[in-house]
Amino acid sequence: MTQNEQTKEHSNDGSFKRQTNRFITPFGDNPGELPIEAGRYRLLWSQACPWAHRSVIVRSVLGLENVISLGTASPIRPHLPHVDWEFSLDEKGVDPVLGIRYMSEIYKKTDPKYSGRPTVPLFVDVQKFEAVNNDYFKLTNYLETTWEPFHGENAPVLYPESLRNQIDALNDVIFHEVNNGVYKCGFAKSQEAYKSAFDTLFARLDKFEEHLSKQRFLFGDFITDSDVRLYVTLVRFDVAYYNGFNANRNLISEFPNLWGYVRDLYQTPGFGDTTDFDAIKKHYHTSITIDPDNTSVKILPKGPDLSGWTKEHNRQLVSGKDEKYLRKLV
Amino acid sequence: MTQNEQTKEHSNDGSFKRQTNRFITPFGDNPGELPIEAGRYRLLWSQACPWAHRSVIVRSVLGLENVISLGTASPIRPHLPHVDWEFSLDEKGVDPVLGIRYMSEIYKKTDPKYSGRPTVPLFVDVQKFEAVNNDYFKLTNYLETTWEPFHGENAPVLYPESLRNQIDALNDVIFHEVNNGVYKCGFAKSQEAYKSAFDTLFARLDKFEEHLSKQRFLFGDFITDSDVRLYVTLVRFDVAYYNGFNANRNLISEFPNLWGYVRDLYQTPGFGDTTDFDAIKKHYHTSITIDPDNTSVKILPKGPDLSGWTKEHNRQLVSGKDEKYLRKLV
Repeated sequence: MTQNEQTKEHSNDGSFKRQTNRFITPFGDNPGELPIEAGRYRLLWSQACPWAHRSVIVRSVLGLENVISLGTASPIRPHLPHVDWEFSLDEKGVDPVLGIRYMSEIYKKTDPKYSGRPTVPLFVDVQKFEAVNNDYFKLTNYLETTWEPFHGENAPVLYPESLRNQIDALNDVIFHEVNNGVYKCGFAKSQEAYKSAFDTLFARLDKFEEHLSKQRFLFGDFITDSDVRLYVTLVRFDVAYYNGFNANRNLISEFPNLWGYVRDLYQTPGFGDTTDFDAIKKHYHTSITIDPDNTSVKILPKGPDLSGWTKEHNRQLVSGKDEKYLRKLV
Repeated sequence: MTQNEQTKEHSNDGSFKRQTNRFITPFGDNPGELPIEAGRYRLLWSQACPWAHRSVIVRSVLGLENVISLGTASPIRPHLPHVDWEFSLDEKGVDPVLGIRYMSEIYKKTDPKYSGRPTVPLFVDVQKFEAVNNDYFKLTNYLETTWEPFHGENAPVLYPESLRNQIDALNDVIFHEVNNGVYKCGFAKSQEAYKSAFDTLFARLDKFEEHLSKQRFLFGDFITDSDVRLYVTLVRFDVAYYNGFNANRNLISEFPNLWGYVRDLYQTPGFGDTTDFDAIKKHYHTSITIDPDNTSVKILPKGPDLSGWTKEHNRQLVSGKDEKYLRKLV
């Protein structure tokens, strides 16, 4: 983020205001909507980014890997002349399908006047070579609903109709207080804005801690879209937000139920295998900082100790059942 | 620290090299030594500083409060034109006995050519109005030995003759690997220098963790000078070094024995009552940073949760005895 761009995303009171998304055409069968077709789209992400990670988890859990391809940008973001995402992990430094070096190329190709930060996740229509959707808030829901014809055989129902209103309401809370809450802590430019975000964040984590003492996942014995959204922030918390964003009342590993819960998810296919702690640490500690204009030497913290993530979580005892937890709702 | 001064305290490989002390005349009865007299000296410190905290703990534990007076500089250091310590906590912003606003005044008054950072702890001869000793490594030992005639009635023996060689050897390790070890992590200007300091620091903490599983304090069932030295770093660790200095493999509260040990000391008169977490946090998070040239907005972290410090530690169970632990050695 350049100084200029960062100022655009701050209020006068020093609080962080995330930019809105540019490409929000829904997926669907109606005229003007994005058609559901296998092989038509490429999902661009970075392993560092929690917003993009949600779509990648859901794509994996629902068995959409062969339906929607995946392009991966480096967690280390180039900052000059403008902040960007770069395909430097790929051979020759370009995405092998789209042939682009920087994320901004596809944004500019689609909308030459685009002036925001180029963000991930981004769905690209490979036929048209155009950005079509970067609506991170709704992307997982599209994958869960309109993309159902392509779901894998034993795919769970992450967004059951009977719970959608409740899931939507909780997702709104998770977004403002947790997912974006940590950014509000880390990017605050005043002590007051920081304090307010900090208090809201930990009050919410305390409520989830209590809630998860009684049930295995947010809505019961099965994983939903809300769990995916909470996971992407919790899994980054101790390695990035606690020290990088001053979200340091407690580590997640100090909350007995949240710590069991996030490891339960981590050990579930689609979650841990799409989580790259090394990429996350590199991104948050050496590529973005609280002050993006700070050009001092960036040190990558060696900690924290990650040995606990694969240890037994025993969360099945909370529900009293030892059933397979990716259960298909009927 | 200005850019210039900081460069003076770094090697070419990016590792931090602390400046040496200027005023090292010993206390004692020999000609040329500093005479031991009640009311003659004023000890200048800041609650933030671990090096100064050692002398203040020992002064308190040994009952020297009425023998050596105490002047307290603010944890917030002024940086312009040169880094300093300021008596801004005092009425009118000057030390009530010495009448100085900045620590540098007494350094310059004593040695007009003094060009290092003005440091605490500093013993000032109030009669001569001169800096006489800032040798933080040895000051506690002077208080424990040559100052014995003024010790309180039930003062413990912190530096017993039979253990001095062992205490000195351990103090050397504590200094290089722990006390200064955290600064080597935080002030490293290369990834390699940081990694090396990090590994050394946590390897040593692991050894202390093991050692303290078998006995209550470093040398047995009684507190020594070495415990004072280890305490001042451990008590600052979770609130300052873990996130401010990237010393984040583990919190001290994650080491069962070190966590019990440091709380045992915290709950001992002279330790906790001279520990000011608020001052420590303000200093490390808003006044010094890894990059002292970074002039961005400084946010004071609200965490971590401090509620555990006063909780029962049960360390008496390690020694198997429930005796009063500030025991006088015979």
